[in-house]
Amino acid sequence: MNSSVVDSDFYTLRWVGDVDGRLELLDQTLLPVEVKYLPCDDVDTLFEAIRSLRVRGAPAIGVAAAYGVCLGLRGSQDRTESDFFFKLDEVCRYLAASRPTAVNLFWALDRMRQAAELQRGLVPLEVLQAMLLDEARRIHEEDAAMCRAIGAHGAKLLNDGDGVLTHCNAGALATSEYGTALAVLYAAQEQGKRLQVFVDETRPLLQGSRLTAWELDRRGFDVTLICDNMAAQVMREGRVQAVVVGADRIASNGDAANKIGTYGVACLAKMHEVPFYVAAPSSTFDLSLTDGFGIPIEERDPREITHGFGKQTAPTGVKVYNPAFDVTPAKLIRGIICERGVISPVDADGIGRLIGS
Amino acid sequence: MNSSVVDSDFYTLRWVGDVDGRLELLDQTLLPVEVKYLPCDDVDTLFEAIRSLRVRGAPAIGVAAAYGVCLGLRGSQDRTESDFFFKLDEVCRYLAASRPTAVNLFWALDRMRQAAELQRGLVPLEVLQAMLLDEARRIHEEDAAMCRAIGAHGAKLLNDGDGVLTHCNAGALATSEYGTALAVLYAAQEQGKRLQVFVDETRPLLQGSRLTAWELDRRGFDVTLICDNMAAQVMREGRVQAVVVGADRIASNGDAANKIGTYGVACLAKMHEVPFYVAAPSSTFDLSLTDGFGIPIEERDPREITHGFGKQTAPTGVKVYNPAFDVTPAKLIRGIICERGVISPVDADGIGRLIGS
Repeated sequence: MNSSVVDSDFYTLRWVGDVDGRLELLDQTLLPVEVKYLPCDDVDTLFEAIRSLRVRGAPAIGVAAAYGVCLGLRGSQDRTESDFFFKLDEVCRYLAASRPTAVNLFWALDRMRQAAELQRGLVPLEVLQAMLLDEARRIHEEDAAMCRAIGAHGAKLLNDGDGVLTHCNAGALATSEYGTALAVLYAAQEQGKRLQVFVDETRPLLQGSRLTAWELDRRGFDVTLICDNMAAQVMREGRVQAVVVGADRIASNGDAANKIGTYGVACLAKMHEVPFYVAAPSSTFDLSLTDGFGIPIEERDPREITHGFGKQTAPTGVKVYNPAFDVTPAKLIRGIICERGVISPVDADGIGRLIGS
Repeated sequence: MNSSVVDSDFYTLRWVGDVDGRLELLDQTLLPVEVKYLPCDDVDTLFEAIRSLRVRGAPAIGVAAAYGVCLGLRGSQDRTESDFFFKLDEVCRYLAASRPTAVNLFWALDRMRQAAELQRGLVPLEVLQAMLLDEARRIHEEDAAMCRAIGAHGAKLLNDGDGVLTHCNAGALATSEYGTALAVLYAAQEQGKRLQVFVDETRPLLQGSRLTAWELDRRGFDVTLICDNMAAQVMREGRVQAVVVGADRIASNGDAANKIGTYGVACLAKMHEVPFYVAAPSSTFDLSLTDGFGIPIEERDPREITHGFGKQTAPTGVKVYNPAFDVTPAKLIRGIICERGVISPVDADGIGRLIGS
């Protein structure tokens, strides 16, 4: 990356200082209008930040929660060991209540708890505190490394000069850095490939225009924002050579759930003979599901559609259908890019080989 | 229609009284929040109403302008004949400047002028005034009759219990009454067919949620509002048996330009084996064009996407692609419903037979 890119760079979250340090979060609720970092000196501030989506994206929430355990234990080195572990338990339970559905949140908190239990009675509390900060940093680094690996595998699929379309935000802002779908673009950029990126605004919550367009723009990409209903036209004009999106859950046959609208983009890509890729870590696979029909589709508040811009834009009381996700069948997916490699063709055999049964 | 439907009914525009009467317009800029009729007692009020989209939709603008000529000539029966015609010319030029691109506007004004010229020197001015009001009413009635005929032809294509998806607003609000695409739904409803209508919100200007959902809701339809990117999911769930949309221009081979997003819906309909219909009057055909590639695609203000509804939702200065229309190729269209009948299959032969060469 050249220096101007570095100058304009941002971070999703970072720990500043040592065990008595603090967590700083990019406040995503202020994007794209304002770039402001929120210092979290206590676990209450972090709890509120997770709850109100100042930090969002399952991997980013997991990393933030791991650091949150360190925040919650500050000053606890003078307690008794049983008080320390009582406090640890309290902090983990508290943070686990911040968002009810983000699996990475519970996973990261469990990992912090287990790391502490392993050393219980073996090391002084101030050493244990330092080890927990190390564990949080490891979770952070592993997430970053996973994103980098996805990027490295995926970048090979893109060519210099390609037009690439993406939907929603599976980027640096949703992870510790770099992203999943956007990792592929960042890695291609680092290899010197110039891409033209088309970003679906992604109604109803506009993660594409508020977050994806913002982070790609900040990192020097040639970004063009479109409304979701313009993707077909952009493909018809021959301006898209690949689609890359993230995923929330992938069944063992490769059917992939992702933000609503993804399935429609996959259909359009098929009709226009544009390869459609899903980028997601191996932890996204749910091998207990034979196919995508088992993935429940959450329905969200009608007001996201009827009052989406702070203003009423639909008749009072009109019926609304607002599914948060849809499922793209494996047959529409050219490849799934994960940190272990690219699964293509996408089927149960390929997934079994790379992800394990 | 039962009485409750009539009670909750609305009108797009109507002339109240005789030659000294006035035009009343439903102020569409206040929809869907407020239903308020704007009385136009003078041509200045109407000019402002057309310019600021209080009345919109090419057919509705044409009818409003015809009545506008009558407004502009009120009290002119006491002038000399040459002063009367000077005034007529002045009013027509003035109204023609209200919207630069709506073809129906110029067509309606020309027709009013020709109607007056035909009687010049033959009848007293107060009789001429009455004849001009009759001519405006005829334009109004012809538009309504054209919509009714489209509805009658199209309704045969829908079955009781069908789910129907539409995009943008080709409804009563865009015409003198009844609409084009929505005429098909209104006519089916009058035949006792119960439909479930899915309305794309239609970004960026949300004509679907602001206008279509509103008018169908008022007229007792089972309406479900969705974001544009949810159409694929609704089709996949098997909830759509037909798509009906309007058109802005149709080439001689059947390629049809309509609101951006229409082409994407047509692709999705094809993939889900849902018939896709275009409803438009014969005046929409441009037989000078061999295909849709000749139809220019207007690009609109990026702020419609970046600052929709008064709030910044995209990074400052981001590049935007905002085409107002797209072109659906004839091969994706099952039938074109016009006031003369249904053209199906859609090809140059079928169009030539019904529309003339």
